[in-house]
Formats: sequence, structure tokens, C-alpha cells
Amino acid sequence: MPERLVVIGGVAAGMSAASRARKLRPEMEIVVLEKGRDVSYGACGLPYFVAGLVARPEELVVYDARFFREKRNIDVRLEHEAIAIEPGKKTVHALRSGSQPVAVRYDKLILATGAAPVLELPGSQRPNVFHCNTLAEAIRLRRFLEEHRPQRAVIIGSGYIGLEVAEALVRRGLEVTILERSNAVLDGIEPEIEQKLEQALAAHGVKLRKGAEAKSILGTGEGPAQGVAYGLSGHEAADLVVFSAGIRPRTELAAEAGIAIGPTGAIATDERMQTNLPGHYAAGDCAEVHNLVTGKSDYLPLGTTANKQGRVAGENAAGYAARFDGVVGTLVTRFFELGLARTGLSVAQARAHGFAAMQVTVSAYTRAKYFGGKKFLLTLIWDQASERVLGCQIAGEDDAAKRIDTAAMALHARMRIEDLLYVDLSYAPPFAPVWEALLVAANEARKQGHRA
Amino acid sequence: MPERLVVIGGVAAGMSAASRARKLRPEMEIVVLEKGRDVSYGACGLPYFVAGLVARPEELVVYDARFFREKRNIDVRLEHEAIAIEPGKKTVHALRSGSQPVAVRYDKLILATGAAPVLELPGSQRPNVFHCNTLAEAIRLRRFLEEHRPQRAVIIGSGYIGLEVAEALVRRGLEVTILERSNAVLDGIEPEIEQKLEQALAAHGVKLRKGAEAKSILGTGEGPAQGVAYGLSGHEAADLVVFSAGIRPRTELAAEAGIAIGPTGAIATDERMQTNLPGHYAAGDCAEVHNLVTGKSDYLPLGTTANKQGRVAGENAAGYAARFDGVVGTLVTRFFELGLARTGLSVAQARAHGFAAMQVTVSAYTRAKYFGGKKFLLTLIWDQASERVLGCQIAGEDDAAKRIDTAAMALHARMRIEDLLYVDLSYAPPFAPVWEALLVAANEARKQGHRA
Repeated sequence: MPERLVVIGGVAAGMSAASRARKLRPEMEIVVLEKGRDVSYGACGLPYFVAGLVARPEELVVYDARFFREKRNIDVRLEHEAIAIEPGKKTVHALRSGSQPVAVRYDKLILATGAAPVLELPGSQRPNVFHCNTLAEAIRLRRFLEEHRPQRAVIIGSGYIGLEVAEALVRRGLEVTILERSNAVLDGIEPEIEQKLEQALAAHGVKLRKGAEAKSILGTGEGPAQGVAYGLSGHEAADLVVFSAGIRPRTELAAEAGIAIGPTGAIATDERMQTNLPGHYAAGDCAEVHNLVTGKSDYLPLGTTANKQGRVAGENAAGYAARFDGVVGTLVTRFFELGLARTGLSVAQARAHGFAAMQVTVSAYTRAKYFGGKKFLLTLIWDQASERVLGCQIAGEDDAAKRIDTAAMALHARMRIEDLLYVDLSYAPPFAPVWEALLVAANEARKQGHRA
Repeated sequence: MPERLVVIGGVAAGMSAASRARKLRPEMEIVVLEKGRDVSYGACGLPYFVAGLVARPEELVVYDARFFREKRNIDVRLEHEAIAIEPGKKTVHALRSGSQPVAVRYDKLILATGAAPVLELPGSQRPNVFHCNTLAEAIRLRRFLEEHRPQRAVIIGSGYIGLEVAEALVRRGLEVTILERSNAVLDGIEPEIEQKLEQALAAHGVKLRKGAEAKSILGTGEGPAQGVAYGLSGHEAADLVVFSAGIRPRTELAAEAGIAIGPTGAIATDERMQTNLPGHYAAGDCAEVHNLVTGKSDYLPLGTTANKQGRVAGENAAGYAARFDGVVGTLVTRFFELGLARTGLSVAQARAHGFAAMQVTVSAYTRAKYFGGKKFLLTLIWDQASERVLGCQIAGEDDAAKRIDTAAMALHARMRIEDLLYVDLSYAPPFAPVWEALLVAANEARKQGHRA
């Protein structure tokens, strides 16, 4: 009997894992249990599908279940919700189509159970209340927009998905209000960068209420939501409510099976993505990640990390030796023309980890002005004691935000300010200014160091 | 009497040096001797001025001589050609306006004498023969284009400046032929990348003759050039000829003064940009540079390096301690919509330096297709023995070429293939695909390594 790999969850991490294992082990039996009706879709593209920039849902689906079954010999079982794992018997128990019990034996198991919204509010089952975390939910939201033509939307939470949904709804002609319980948009963003974002929100007519914690969804009977109550006595009227207040790892299945949960609340793994139970791996939004800047476990659920972890888990489950060392915390998003990116730690995060964090913000052009260059902001964060670079944030138009990758490489290489002063970055008028913002920032950081 | 710094040459390296010294030492006397009529212009923008994308020459001049005199208290002397240095007497001898001898005493000297075209051909003094290496020459070329409306241009040499001038002349409506004596466009370019460039040249109607070494400029009497003779018996008719066949460092002044010339033929310096004579520095296109990939001296004249070397030379001449560790050989250019970039060594260069060089070429998108993403090529070059990354080249539209900076950082940090497999580069559909080309290439390289 061939060895059998079972993967729970068929989105980014799960399908990456299954595909990698198949590539390395043509004879292995591979089963994917997916509770929904879709596999392998680009969840990061959902807001652009809602906006209509992506015309059809199929464009977000990299490959469908049939492709995996027929071309990759992966036994994808849709509408199979795993409900229990018995590690002793190496068996997963699932419900097919919500009711039929199924038991699936495995030799190796990969948990890619994803994440769930953090926030549950009274009234959130009303028909015009949405999340934007699955393809099915995004399709429901878009259909609602097209059929009901709502005018006022309230978005609860201003993380990067909230911002992307805000853009989508503005493009659809809605009046948008964001309720953010903290005092800043985008968690861990530095003040100068945050200010740029607030300007862009205002320029596109988005109303932002900071320090406004959503309390309940307003409405009568079973009818649609009519607004959101927040804070002590605030309320905001709405024809449409979208939740985007953060996610938490789905770990119930793992925890009940005796798989260790880490300090962040997500499934703990080693660098091979193996949990405390040999042969049991975890990857994607349900799993922890090693933060290379802090040297500690972290929870940073992102599509790109899910793909990498999935690939590594799949490779190891197939009997090979792959290693995922960790991330530096790189993120990019945009609100209309304004690109926003970060990598590493913010000043507050760095201080919380015991670093003597300093920061400097500079501006520079993306390219020569006669090639349409735009001025953008770059914040560099470093440790005063060691001069080690700890983080970088960018806000700007044109291709400014993608420059974060250069800083991400510097974090991977544990570079110090001195190492960045004269790095040989590419220059030509259609592409860059003579002094890239990162170099300008490193030179300013050096000056601050001398003064300190 | 205040200490006096004299800088020979007032373009990128020279004015960077003077400005840096001024900033650090308000009381220092600073004199710049510039043989031409312009200082501090963006030489890399000259082809775009010829094309007309930059309307007026003033747009290329960062600051003019008057600005430096009045705002920065730098004694810029235009039309002062240095003709001899007496290190024993710490004196530079110059000719003012081509004839009046002037002697200028110094305490510290910075040589920023730049570079001269390599190739001298019979007939190159004809009125419709141009270089494109100074602002004055670019103005003369553009005026010629506007007044004489030439139809056929021959460009001698296909380095990046030749390509940029070719684009400029195509934009001006000329039929353009490039004569390249070697068998490849752009020195040190890998075959797959070169092929992309040749396709772009053909698509824009540029005729490329490879293996065609220019021998003389054809014409009668003192009259205009009528064409270029090449190879054994070839000739190409032309109303306009532009030289772009490489440059060599201007070192005559230095050599005659006993300043050491390095193995590359350029002025040798230490990491502080000091020559063998204490207090005598060199920076920019006249100076060598330390190549961090090979660990040896190199000659890689580029504007961005000139600015950095100038800054470091100025800082040290002002009594501070700055260090320029070297470059990894990063270059970016474009031909119309096709961006081309490289960093580090080509396979041939790497092998010449004793590395067991391997390469792989992959393609990936710049961003999601629904955001106008374009497929581009990336070639990764590494050493099979150590797995150290040695170079990277990119050809593609959109913002593909600027991604070379990520590879440049990897070279600075001496990363190995294994370090690149899962680097935390930024991902979101408007900016990137899930797997950046660099990561795809590293994974392919790893596979090749296993097979070998």
C-alpha cells in the first residue's frame, strides 16, 4: 500500500504542500480535505474581485479541483470538513457536505486549516454583513453590491484588507466609513507613513473614525443591518457592513489532537514545519512563524508565507529535507495610487523586544522627475546599540512600495547602518535617483548615531 | 590661512566631493577647476535630452556654478583646464580659457578628471560626428538634429549609452544602425537577456551589425561624414555618426605627477579614496573601484559610483574618516519599454575569475496579470563549489529591471543560493506574484546543484 499524505485545507498552504509532495513523490497517495467549494485561489486578490478589477471569480482560481485531480493526481475532496484527528490511529474524521461522517487514514498529515475572524459581534449574521476572507464570501459581497446597490458602507477594522476593501467599495461608488478601535490605521505603522495614508483616505472621501471600537450591528428582527454601534454611544448608519478586524489561527482540531500550540496561539512547528507530533506538519495561517528580526515565534499570517510554508511542509512530508528559516515581516498593500510597505519591526515593536530603537524618515524620488518620478517617504528603524537595521516602512506612489524588498534583504542579512551607506543599487534616470531613499536614510541614521 | 581643498573636475564626483567637504568644514577654502562651462549635471540624462524627453539643458543641471559660489561658498572656476600637478609644491597648474596660465596652491587635492572615449578614428573631427559624454556635446548633437534633420544615423558601439542614444534617435525619426565589433550587444550580458534586447531593437527598426568593427569615418575634404567604414570592406551610409564605443579613465595628469595607476589603467586608491600620495584623492570615472564580488580592483565607471566615491573623498579630504568598500557592479538601462539590468558577474566573467559558474534563467510576472503584470526574464549566476550567488541579470517591461536591487543586496551580503530560497519579499497582486523571479531562480539553481 502506498504511503498516504492527507492535507487539511485546500487554499494557499494546503495546495502548495500537496503539489510539492506530488512533484517529489509520484507514487504517494495524496488527499486534500477542503471544507469549502474552492481550492487554490488567490485570497489576496479578493478585494480586487469585489472592486470589479478582476472580472470573474475563475481568474482568482489558480487551478481548480478538477485540474488537481486529473493533472496532478491529487484526490481533492471538496465540502469535506475535518472535525477530529486521532493521531494514535492516524485517522482524520470529516463531515462530507455537512452531515456524512467520513474517516480518512493517513501516514503523514499536514494541517493547513487557515484562520478565522477574531471579532464576533451581536447581529453579524444579518444578510448585509460580510467578511472578505474566502472566495465564497467575496462572491456573496459582490453580488450584494450589484443587486442591492447599497450607498453607505461601514468597514470594521483598518488592517490592510480593510483598506483594500475600502478602495473596492469607493470604486463601486459607496460612501465608506472605517471604524478603527486603536488610534492608528494599519497596525505597527510609523506616524509619518500613517499620515500619508490618512491623507489618501481623505482624498478619496473615506471617513475614518479612530478610537472607535465596534460593539454591535444594528438592525431590527432578522432584517438587514442598518448601522454599527461603536464606543460608548456612537453609531454609524450603513447599508452594508464588512468585517476586517483581524484574524486568529484555526487551531481547535490541532489542540484537541494534542498538537502543541505556541505562545502566539498558533500551531508551533520546527523549521521543517513539523509539529510536536512526528509526521504531523502545519503550514499557513494556522501556524506560527519564526521572526528572524526578533529571533522569536510570531504570528504573521500572509499568503506569500503560506505558500512557502506549504511548500516546505510538502517537501518534508514527502521524505525530503527542506527548511523554512522564517520571515522578516514584509508586507505591501495599496490604497488607490498610494503604495504602503513595511518590513521588520516598528519602533514600538522593537522597543517591546528590548531594542534601543531609533528611526529616521526621509523622502526621495522614485525616478527622474522628467520620467514621472514621485517623491515618497521611507522610514528606517535601527538599534542604537548594535546599529543593526530593524525595520523599514515606505509610503508612496509609482513603484516606491516595491523598494521594500531591498530593505527586506538587508534584514535577512542582518546588515548594520554602516553596511547600507553606499550599497550599489541601480541607477538610471528612468528607474531611480542617484541616491536611493534607503541610502539617504542610512546616511541620516549615521548622523543621528554620531549625535547621540 | 585656512586649509585649501582643490578639486579637479566639476561633474558628479567632483561636485559631490566639494559639497561634502563644505558641509563638514565650513571654514575650509574649496576651489573646483572645471575645464568646461558646466558643473554638476546629470550625465546619465544626456540621451533623454537628445531625445527631447528633457526639454531644456538646465533641467539636467542639478545646481549651476553660481549656486555653488553663492550658496555653498565653493570657488567654482569654469574653463580652467588643469595641465599639471606638482605634488612637492602642492600646486596645480591650469590654463584659463585655453591660454592664460594659472597656478593654484592646495593642501588637499581631489582628482575627478573623468573619462575619455576609447576609440579615435580617422575622420572623427567632421562636423556631424558626435560623442554623447558631456552636456556641451549633447547640446551640439540636439541642435544638429533640429537644424539639419538628418535621416540616417550610425552609432559606433552598443554599450548602454549607445542603446540610450539609439532610442533617442529613433524617437527623433531617424533610421538607426548600430555597429558593434563584438558578437553581443551590451558587454557581459547573458544570451537569453541579449536575445530579448535584440528583439526590442528589431521591433523599433534599429539595424544591428554585430562583429562589425568601425575603421574610419567616410567623407570628402573637410565636409560632413557620409558614412562609416567597418570590418574588411563594409560601409554604412550616415548623415550623423555617434561614438559610443567605451571610455577610458583620464589619468595623464595623475600619472605625470607620480600618482599610482592600478592594474585596470585607472587611478588606484584605498578604501578612503586616497591615492599613493597622502592628501591626494581620486574619485569617479578616473578612479578604480573595488569589486566586492571578485575581491579585486575593477574599472566600472558609472554616475552613481562617482557620486559615492566623491562623497567619501570629500569627507576624508575634510579630515573625517569615511570608507567606500566597493561595488558589486550594478547597472540598469532601458531601450524603449524594455528595461535591462545586471549586477555582479556574467558567467564568462565569473569563469575568468576562477569560479565554477553556473546559470539558470527563469521567467515570472512583475505583478498580477489583472494589474498589467508583464512576464520578464531573470538570469541567476552562482558558484557551484560554494553556492555563492555571483550575479543576476534581468530583462523586462514594467518595473522588472529595478528588481535587480534585491539581487545587488544579496551580493553585498555574500548570500548563497540556500539563503535566497524563501526570502521574505513583498507580495500583493498590484505589486508582485506570490513567487518572485529571484526565488524561482534560486529554487531552480538548487535543483541544478542536486543534479550536478
